[in-house]
Amino acid sequence: MQPGQTIRLSLPSKGRLEIDVLDFLAETGLPVFKPNPRQYEAQVPSLPELGIIFQRPGDIVVSVRQGSIDFGIAGMDVIEEKRGPNGDILILHDSLGFGHCSLMLAVPETWEQVTDIASLREYSITFENPLRVATKFPVLTERFLNQNRISHILISAEGTLETAPTIGYADIISDLVSSGQTLKDNRLRALPDGVIQPSQAALIANRKALKTNPSALAMARRLLEYIEAHLRAKENLLVVANMRGESPEAIAQKMFDETIVSGLQGPTISPVMVRDAKQTWFSVSIVVHRADLSRAITELRTIGGSGIIVSPVTYIFEEEPPRYKAMLNALKG
Amino acid sequence: MQPGQTIRLSLPSKGRLEIDVLDFLAETGLPVFKPNPRQYEAQVPSLPELGIIFQRPGDIVVSVRQGSIDFGIAGMDVIEEKRGPNGDILILHDSLGFGHCSLMLAVPETWEQVTDIASLREYSITFENPLRVATKFPVLTERFLNQNRISHILISAEGTLETAPTIGYADIISDLVSSGQTLKDNRLRALPDGVIQPSQAALIANRKALKTNPSALAMARRLLEYIEAHLRAKENLLVVANMRGESPEAIAQKMFDETIVSGLQGPTISPVMVRDAKQTWFSVSIVVHRADLSRAITELRTIGGSGIIVSPVTYIFEEEPPRYKAMLNALKG
Amino acid sequence: MQPGQTIRLSLPSKGRLEIDVLDFLAETGLPVFKPNPRQYEAQVPSLPELGIIFQRPGDIVVSVRQGSIDFGIAGMDVIEEKRGPNGDILILHDSLGFGHCSLMLAVPETWEQVTDIASLREYSITFENPLRVATKFPVLTERFLNQNRISHILISAEGTLETAPTIGYADIISDLVSSGQTLKDNRLRALPDGVIQPSQAALIANRKALKTNPSALAMARRLLEYIEAHLRAKENLLVVANMRGESPEAIAQKMFDETIVSGLQGPTISPVMVRDAKQTWFSVSIVVHRADLSRAITELRTIGGSGIIVSPVTYIFEEEPPRYKAMLNALKG
Amino acid sequence: MQPGQTIRLSLPSKGRLEIDVLDFLAETGLPVFKPNPRQYEAQVPSLPELGIIFQRPGDIVVSVRQGSIDFGIAGMDVIEEKRGPNGDILILHDSLGFGHCSLMLAVPETWEQVTDIASLREYSITFENPLRVATKFPVLTERFLNQNRISHILISAEGTLETAPTIGYADIISDLVSSGQTLKDNRLRALPDGVIQPSQAALIANRKALKTNPSALAMARRLLEYIEAHLRAKENLLVVANMRGESPEAIAQKMFDETIVSGLQGPTISPVMVRDAKQTWFSVSIVVHRADLSRAITELRTIGGSGIIVSPVTYIFEEEPPRYKAMLNALKG
Amino acid sequence: MQPGQTIRLSLPSKGRLEIDVLDFLAETGLPVFKPNPRQYEAQVPSLPELGIIFQRPGDIVVSVRQGSIDFGIAGMDVIEEKRGPNGDILILHDSLGFGHCSLMLAVPETWEQVTDIASLREYSITFENPLRVATKFPVLTERFLNQNRISHILISAEGTLETAPTIGYADIISDLVSSGQTLKDNRLRALPDGVIQPSQAALIANRKALKTNPSALAMARRLLEYIEAHLRAKENLLVVANMRGESPEAIAQKMFDETIVSGLQGPTISPVMVRDAKQTWFSVSIVVHRADLSRAITELRTIGGSGIIVSPVTYIFEEEPPRYKAMLNALKG
Amino acid sequence: MQPGQTIRLSLPSKGRLEIDVLDFLAETGLPVFKPNPRQYEAQVPSLPELGIIFQRPGDIVVSVRQGSIDFGIAGMDVIEEKRGPNGDILILHDSLGFGHCSLMLAVPETWEQVTDIASLREYSITFENPLRVATKFPVLTERFLNQNRISHILISAEGTLETAPTIGYADIISDLVSSGQTLKDNRLRALPDGVIQPSQAALIANRKALKTNPSALAMARRLLEYIEAHLRAKENLLVVANMRGESPEAIAQKMFDETIVSGLQGPTISPVMVRDAKQTWFSVSIVVHRADLSRAITELRTIGGSGIIVSPVTYIFEEEPPRYKAMLNALKG
Repeated sequence: MQPGQTIRLSLPSKGRLEIDVLDFLAETGLPVFKPNPRQYEAQVPSLPELGIIFQRPGDIVVSVRQGSIDFGIAGMDVIEEKRGPNGDILILHDSLGFGHCSLMLAVPETWEQVTDIASLREYSITFENPLRVATKFPVLTERFLNQNRISHILISAEGTLETAPTIGYADIISDLVSSGQTLKDNRLRALPDGVIQPSQAALIANRKALKTNPSALAMARRLLEYIEAHLRAKENLLVVANMRGESPEAIAQKMFDETIVSGLQGPTISPVMVRDAKQTWFSVSIVVHRADLSRAITELRTIGGSGIIVSPVTYIFEEEPPRYKAMLNALKG
Repeated sequence: MQPGQTIRLSLPSKGRLEIDVLDFLAETGLPVFKPNPRQYEAQVPSLPELGIIFQRPGDIVVSVRQGSIDFGIAGMDVIEEKRGPNGDILILHDSLGFGHCSLMLAVPETWEQVTDIASLREYSITFENPLRVATKFPVLTERFLNQNRISHILISAEGTLETAPTIGYADIISDLVSSGQTLKDNRLRALPDGVIQPSQAALIANRKALKTNPSALAMARRLLEYIEAHLRAKENLLVVANMRGESPEAIAQKMFDETIVSGLQGPTISPVMVRDAKQTWFSVSIVVHRADLSRAITELRTIGGSGIIVSPVTYIFEEEPPRYKAMLNALKG
Repeated sequence: MQPGQTIRLSLPSKGRLEIDVLDFLAETGLPVFKPNPRQYEAQVPSLPELGIIFQRPGDIVVSVRQGSIDFGIAGMDVIEEKRGPNGDILILHDSLGFGHCSLMLAVPETWEQVTDIASLREYSITFENPLRVATKFPVLTERFLNQNRISHILISAEGTLETAPTIGYADIISDLVSSGQTLKDNRLRALPDGVIQPSQAALIANRKALKTNPSALAMARRLLEYIEAHLRAKENLLVVANMRGESPEAIAQKMFDETIVSGLQGPTISPVMVRDAKQTWFSVSIVVHRADLSRAITELRTIGGSGIIVSPVTYIFEEEPPRYKAMLNALKG
Repeated sequence: MQPGQTIRLSLPSKGRLEIDVLDFLAETGLPVFKPNPRQYEAQVPSLPELGIIFQRPGDIVVSVRQGSIDFGIAGMDVIEEKRGPNGDILILHDSLGFGHCSLMLAVPETWEQVTDIASLREYSITFENPLRVATKFPVLTERFLNQNRISHILISAEGTLETAPTIGYADIISDLVSSGQTLKDNRLRALPDGVIQPSQAALIANRKALKTNPSALAMARRLLEYIEAHLRAKENLLVVANMRGESPEAIAQKMFDETIVSGLQGPTISPVMVRDAKQTWFSVSIVVHRADLSRAITELRTIGGSGIIVSPVTYIFEEEPPRYKAMLNALKG
Repeated sequence: MQPGQTIRLSLPSKGRLEIDVLDFLAETGLPVFKPNPRQYEAQVPSLPELGIIFQRPGDIVVSVRQGSIDFGIAGMDVIEEKRGPNGDILILHDSLGFGHCSLMLAVPETWEQVTDIASLREYSITFENPLRVATKFPVLTERFLNQNRISHILISAEGTLETAPTIGYADIISDLVSSGQTLKDNRLRALPDGVIQPSQAALIANRKALKTNPSALAMARRLLEYIEAHLRAKENLLVVANMRGESPEAIAQKMFDETIVSGLQGPTISPVMVRDAKQTWFSVSIVVHRADLSRAITELRTIGGSGIIVSPVTYIFEEEPPRYKAMLNALKG
Repeated sequence: MQPGQTIRLSLPSKGRLEIDVLDFLAETGLPVFKPNPRQYEAQVPSLPELGIIFQRPGDIVVSVRQGSIDFGIAGMDVIEEKRGPNGDILILHDSLGFGHCSLMLAVPETWEQVTDIASLREYSITFENPLRVATKFPVLTERFLNQNRISHILISAEGTLETAPTIGYADIISDLVSSGQTLKDNRLRALPDGVIQPSQAALIANRKALKTNPSALAMARRLLEYIEAHLRAKENLLVVANMRGESPEAIAQKMFDETIVSGLQGPTISPVMVRDAKQTWFSVSIVVHRADLSRAITELRTIGGSGIIVSPVTYIFEEEPPRYKAMLNALKG
C-alpha cells in the first residue's frame, strides 16, 4: 500500500472479469492506474485514499469477510458461495451490469428423460449410488440439491467440469453457464429450472469497516453515488430537436400529448434564430431512455421535429443514491 | 439460432474487417454480443429478433444471394465479384466508412515502359503467350481486361499473389491494395488507371426477403435509420459559444454574415447570466462539420465568441433515411 | 513520404508510448492512419500536408535537432538528454499528460546509511574507487552528479540497468522510474531527492523550420490549438440541472452564492416547460472541473437542483492558445 | 532466388504443415534456413543449388504443373485435386509420414437414416432439389459423387465448411477430417465409406524438368535417397546386448532360433573382455524395427542377453532407392 | 474414448507440466498424438489400447483413486495431498525426473527472529490469535503443523498465495517453491527445515484395476519397462576409443586398472585395420555415466586412447524392471 | 548468485541469440536451468560452481572486460566493438557456429554509380558535407572508414537504421546484415567489399580471472573441451556397413583404395554371423564428415557394402583441445 491509502478495494485479478471491472470503473470516472501488469496493487488517481488490490474472486470475498480488505467487486456466484453465515459482508450494489452468468445444473444430452429438476430426481432414484455432482460451488449446490430433495454426493474439481461426465468422474455438473456453448460442445444440457444462482458483478463491503471507519463510510457513499449516476446515464441519451411553433408553451403541449417525449418533467426549450423572421422556431431538449429512442424520434417527427441531435450523457445524478440509503439501513441492523 | 430470432445478418468472421464491423455496429448503438470467441453466432441485445452469423466475406455474399441469410455486411469488392447477374442482392448502403481498399492491376517495377493500361496493352502484345494475370477476383478482372481489350489468361491463387511474378507463376496481378506497402515490398507497381473496383464495407440484403417478410423490411429500415444517423453524427460536432450582444436577433445577424457559422438553420440562443448586470450575454449553439471546425472557431472569435465548448454527437436524425426510400424504389423494380 | 506531405512529425515507434501517443492524437481529433503495422510511415487524414514518421525516442530528438524532421513527440527525459546546447529544438508543449516517469538515482536497499544525496556523497567518499553509476542518460546524470559534487565514473549499458549492482557491473544506477516496482524487485531504492529529470511526453519542433517555413508555423499553431483545447476539455464536464425559480436572475443569484457553481462566467439558463403551469422551472448549464464535480453536485442539490445531467466535452477553445504565443516569442529570440 | 540456385522446391507456407515439413527436412538431414519469417524464400545450406519457395499448397501444385517450380511438397488431397489431366506432375513419394487427413463426406448428426453412401443416395432422392454439397475440393468431390450416382450441386466456400449445414448454406459437406473433433463440435458425422481421398504429405516434381534438366534429375535422386534412408531409420533402432557363449557361431545359432532377433542377415558379434577369464562374453548387435522392440528384448533375455543398449539410427541406406527406380520408369512413359 | 481403448492414462492438462510430460513420453518412445489442442483426449499410436485424458493434477489423483481412470501422472505434492487414506492409489514410479518443486513454509523476510520451525513455533506463541497459514495443500500442511506442534488456522486461497501476508489475508504461507524467485519478489523467506513435501512427477495406478484387469497389469509392466530403460539411458553415453595394443586382453587389462573405464563388465573390443601393418589397433567400447564422462576421457587418454567417439543411448534394459517387481509385491498386500 | 558458484558466465538475454545459445549449450551437454523466465540468473546443473547471468551482448563484453564476469558468450561484432584496447578480454573460441551476421556498409539502391568502396569514396567527394553514416557500431565503423579514407560524420541511432536514409537522418548506414531482406525492404544495397566485421557467437574470458583463479582456468578447459568435442561431432556421422570378404584385411584394403572411406585411421571391423556358413561377412564402421556422406555411401556400395546404417555422434574428443593450448599461450603473453 502507498502511504495515505487508508481504505482498500479488491478487484478480480484475471481474465474477462478483470478487463470488465477496469473498463467499468474507467467509464464510471474512476480509472484505475496499474503501473505494472505484474503488480497486484494499483491506485485510483482521483481517490488517493483508496488502495486497489487484485485477487482471485474467491479470495476477494474471504478478504472482505475477514476485514483485511474493506471493499470488493466480485460475482454474486462467488459472493453467495463464500459470504458465510454471520453477516460480515454487506452487498452494496448487486447489479453492476457486467460479468453475467448463472450457476446451473447440467446433465448429459443423452439423458433424454431428464428435462427438469423433478425428472432429474426421479431418474437419480434409479441409480445404485447417489448422484455424483461435480462442482466448484459446494455450498450453493448442496443447499439447492437439498432443497430439491435430490440425494447426491458432491465431487470437487480443479479443472474443466464439463468433461467430468464423459471421463466418468461424475454423473452431472453444477457449473457456471454464460453462452452455453461449452456445455453444448461437451454434449451437456442445462436444466431450465436448474438455476442455482444467477450472477453478475457486485460491490461488497466489510460491515465492521463501514461501522467504525468514517472514511470507509464516505468512500461507500462516493462509490455508490458515481456508480448509480453512471449506470443511469448509460441507459439514457440527450435528445434535442428543432420545432416550429408559436411559443414554448404551445410546443410543450404537443409534446405532453405524446407517449415517450412527454417525459417525467417537461422539456427545456430555447429559441432558435432563423433568417426568415416570419417563422418562430424552438429547440427542445429531453432525456430519453436508449430503448425508447426509436419511438421518441418517430414521435418528434410526428409533431414537426427536425434536425434531431442525440448526444451521450456521462452521469445522471438523482437526489440521493438510493442504495446508499439502503446501506445505512442495513448497517443499523 | 436462438429462439425468436427470425432475421439473420451475416458479418465477416476474421481479421481487421471483423474488428471494424463490430466497432462500427457498437458505435451505431447496436453492439453485438458474442458470448464465445469460438462461436460463429452472436446476438444484438437491442434487436432480439436479429440473429448474427459470422462467415468469410465471399460466403456472406453467396448466403445472401441464396437467401439462407437476409442481410450481410461485406466489402464492395467481394459483393461485386459474387453478386451474380440476377438481382437477388440489393445493396442497401454502399459506403459504411470502413474497410477501404481497391482491386487494382499491378505490374513488376522493372516494366518501365508500362505506366498505364494503354502501355500495358501494347507491351503485352509483344509477349509470345497471352498475359498471365494472377487474381482472386476472376469475374471483375476478366470483365475489366476484356473492356480494355487486353488478351490474357487468368491464374487463380490461394496465397499471397504479390510473389507470383517473382516465382514465375504469373506475369502481373490483380489484387486488393490498401496502403500499397505490400506491393512495394514485392517490387510491384499499381497502374494509376488500373482500378478495377474501389471498395469499402457495404450493407446488402436478399431482395426476396425484403419483399415477402415484413419484419425483414422493418429491420432494413431500422438498420438504415441508425446507420445514417450515426454516420452523419460522426462527421459533426456541437459547438457552443458565449457571446455578448444586445439581443438574440443581433447575435444571430452577426452569425448569418459569416460563412460556416451561418448554418443551414439558425443557432439556438439562450441567455447567460452574469454577475455584472450591465452586460447581456448569450450562449449560441450550432452543429458544425468536423472539417470546418477550425474555420468555425475563427469566425466565432471574430464576432466576439469566447469560452467555446465543443461536444460529441451520437446521432443526427433527418426526416427520413434517404437510402431507405431508395431501397423501396429498388424493391418495386 | 506521400506526395503533398510537406511537413513531418515523428512519433515513438514502440511499446506503451506509441500506444499512448496514438490514443492521445485520436482523442485530440487528429487520428493517425497507419495502414500497415510494419511500416514506419503514416498519415493524419485530416491534415494531409503532415507526414508521420515512427522512430525511437532518441532518434526523434536527433532528427528534429538536425532538421530532417520538423516536429516530434517524445519524453522530456530523452529531449533534455539529447537536445544539445544550441537551441535547434523548441519545446512547444511540455506536458501532454501521458508517459509520466522520472530519471532517478537508485541505490541498493542494503545501503542503509544512504537516504539522500548528501548521505550518498558521504558514503561514496569511503570507497576506494569513484562511485560507478550505470545509466542510459549520461548527459543528464553527469550534470546532476557534478552539481551535487559526487565523484563518479559513468557506465553505459544496453540492457536492464537494475541488475547492474547485483552483477557487480556498477554500484548504483540512474534510471527511469515509473511505478518503482522494478526497482523493488531488484532490491534497489530511489533517493527522494535523486530526481534528475521528471518527464512526460512533450511536443518539440525544429526552430529553423518554424522560422523559414510558413506552413510549418501554421501547423504548429494548429497542433497547439487542438492539443490545448483537448487537454482543457478532458479536465471538464458540462453540468446541466433543473431548478425551480422565479426568474433566471433569481436562480443565477443562488448560484453566485456557492463556491464551485458560481463559475467564472455565469450559467446559461433556459426555461423548462412543465405540465403544472404554476411552477416555473429553468435549466441551468455550467462547465465544471472534473475534480470539483462531487462538490458541484452537492452545491446544486443544496440550492434545489435536480435531474442533474453531466455530459462530456470534446474541446474547450479559449481566445488564443497561450503556448502558441509563447512559441512566437521564443522564435524571436 | 539466390545466384547459383538452379532448381526450385516449393513448401507449404503456413500452419501445422509448414512446421511439419521443416521438421521433416531437418530430420532428413536437409535443414532449411529461412533467414526471415516474413520472407517466402529460403535455402538448404547443404544443397546450394536448391532454392526454396513457400506457397499455399494449392499454388504449389499449380506451380509444379506449370513448370515455374521443379519440386513441391504438399498433401495428396490438394495434389489430386489440382494435378490436372495431362501428367505434368509426377508423384515421387506419396507417403512422407506427416500431414495425415482424409477428404470425407459428412452429414448432420440428426440425419439418423443416413449411415453410409447408399443410404445417403436414397435419402437425397426424397429432396425436392438436388443435394447441396459445400466443399473446397470440387474436382474430387464431383468425381466421387458421380461415381456414387448421387445427384447434387456443389457449393464452394471460403470459410469453415462445418457451419454450412447449420446456416442453411448447404445440406452436407465434403471436408478434410483429421481428428473428427471439428465435425463433432458442429454436430456433423462422417460417413464411414465416404472417404473421397485419404491424404498425407507427398513429394512431387514437374515431369518436363526431370526429363530435360540433368541437375533436376540428380536432385530427385538425392532427395529420394535421403528421404527413404531417413524414413527407414525412423522405424528402426540399433540393439546391442552382451551374451555369454562359447563362440560367435554358438550365439548366432541361438539368435537364429528366435523370431525377431534372427533378423534378415545375421548379427555383428564382437568379443567382450571380462575380468573373470573363465567366461567368454560377446556383444551382439542387430537392427530391430521399433514396433518389435519389446519382443526383441524378451527374446534376447530368453537366450541370456543382458545389458541391452538401444541406440538411435539416423539413416539406413539400401542398395538403390526403389522410388527412384519407379520414377525413372515413369519418366520413360 | 476411441473404440478399442480399454485402459486410461490421465495427464496434466496445462502449463509447464503438460509440456514436460509430453516431452518425457516422447523421449521414452511413447509419443502422444493430440489431434486438437482444444481436446481433452489423445492417443499413443504405439499403444492403441491406451486412451489418454488430460485433467488438472488434483482431478487426476481423484480420478485414479475413484477408479474412473486407471493410470495417472502427477506431482507427488498433489498425489500425497489427495491420495486419501485407503490405499486405492499405488505409486508405480515416484521420480520421473521432471516437475521438481517442494511444498514449503515461508515467512515474511522481516520476521528476522524466525529462522527455522522451532523459532517459528516460539514466535507464533507471542501472537494473540493462532498463526494464520494460507495454503492450497490443507491436508499436508495440517499434518506437518500438527507434527511440529504449531497452533494455527488454515486459510484456503484461489490465487497467488505469495501476496497473502502483504494483503493481511494470512500471516505465513505453505506453498510450492521451485526457484524461490516468486518468494523473493514478494519478500518472503522459506524455512530451511520447512519442507512439507518434496515433489516431482510420479506415475500412479488404481489398485483395483491392476488386480482385476490383466491388460492394465500388462500396461503397467510395459510403461515401467520403457520408463526405467529410458531414464537409465538418459544418464549414460556410449564411449568408443581407438587404442594401440598387442591384444584385446592387454588393452582390457589396462582398462581394468583405471577407475571409471574399468566398468562393471568389461569393454567390447574389435580390431581396427590400419594401413601400417606393424601396429595393431583396437576399438574399445564402454557405457559411461554422463557425470563421469570427463574423468573417463582423461583415463582413456592416459592409457593411450585416441579418436574418442561418444554416442547417445535411447534405452538401457536391465534384467527386469525393479519397480515392476515392487508393484507386484504391493499388489499382494 | 547461489552459494558455491564461484565462476560466472554471462549469456545474451534476449531474442534469437538467447534461444540459440541455450540450444547450443544443451547440445554441448551443458543444459542451462533457468527456473524463471523473468530471472536474469540461471544454473548449469552439471557445473555447480558456474553461475549463469543474462545480459545484453554489449553489457556482457563490458562486464567481462571489467572483470565483474569471468566468461561470456556474445557475437564477434559486439566483442570487437567493445573489447577495448588493453587486452583484458581473451577470445577463447571465435566460431561457435551460430549467430552469423556481418557488419556491412549499405547505400541507397538508387546510388547506381556506387558499387564498391572505391566508388563510394569518389561519390562522397561530390557531396557538399561529409558523408553521414548512421551506425550502432561507431568504433568499428570509424576505423573502417578511416582505413578506406572516406571522409564522414557518424550518426548514432537507437532504432532501425535502415529507415535512416529515407527519413533523411543519414546518407548511408553501417549495420548488421544476415539475410539481407531488411536492406532489400528498405531499398538499400550492401557493398560487396563493405564488410566491416564478419561475426558469429564467440566465447570470451577475462584475462586476469584466468591468470589468478585456478578454478576459472579449469572451467575454461572444461568448456573448451566440451565445445570442441561437440562441434566436431556435429559435423560427423558414424557409418556402419556390412561387407562380404575373405578377411578383415582384404576388406580394409578395398576401403583404403577409395577416397572418402579410406579415412585417416582405418575402419573398425567385426564379423557378422550369417546363416549360410559359406559366406564370410564383416561389419565395417567409420566416422564420416556429414558433407561427404553421399560420396561415402556411393563408395561403400561400389565395393560391395550393403545395409548401411548411419548413427549420430554426441562428442568426438581429440588428444587435447587445441584452443585450450592457444589460450595458455595467450595467457603467457
